[in-house]
Amino acid sequence: MATLIAMYKHPEDPAAFDRHHFGVHVPLARKLPNLTSYDVSHGSIDGGSYYLVAVLTFSSHEAMTAALQSEAGEAAQQDLANFAGAGVDILTYDARPA
Amino acid sequence: MATLIAMYKHPEDPAAFDRHHFGVHVPLARKLPNLTSYDVSHGSIDGGSYYLVAVLTFSSHEAMTAALQSEAGEAAQQDLANFAGAGVDILTYDARPA
Repeated sequence: MATLIAMYKHPEDPAAFDRHHFGVHVPLARKLPNLTSYDVSHGSIDGGSYYLVAVLTFSSHEAMTAALQSEAGEAAQQDLANFAGAGVDILTYDARPA
Repeated sequence: MATLIAMYKHPEDPAAFDRHHFGVHVPLARKLPNLTSYDVSHGSIDGGSYYLVAVLTFSSHEAMTAALQSEAGEAAQQDLANFAGAGVDILTYDARPA
């Protein structure tokens, strides 16, 4: 299973971030082809360096790559500039049970 | 669902890291109470700043906190010093479907 984790740094205006993230970005990202799950953190994140974490899973690394290169993937990535100005660290990996 | 992600930086000796991680650390971490899933990355990790990513999930934030404070949790955390000298970033969060 391939996973993409988007770790958003603390925004200057959390209310504006939430409004755009949940109102615009999530609907855009939901259109990604091959998406098998999409979870978003709520409440505080221990450690404090991030404001919000989103976890998107795909059936395989190939499925994830295709999703990110699709029209919906391009749109979602371009939308980051509209609300994630504080920065976002993206981590992708392919995992199997330990 | 509460998630703990351990992001291991590139070790000086990958073979020794793998030997200890899979041979000692994973068996220790499997003893964590309340653990509902345990996945480990394989293959390359895009972006390159990490060597290996482990993702542990628990039914709730309270279940995760109890697991980390248990005897097994203490043992697993102390074991990090035996193989993760290059550094490990730990991120925990509580997530719900987007």
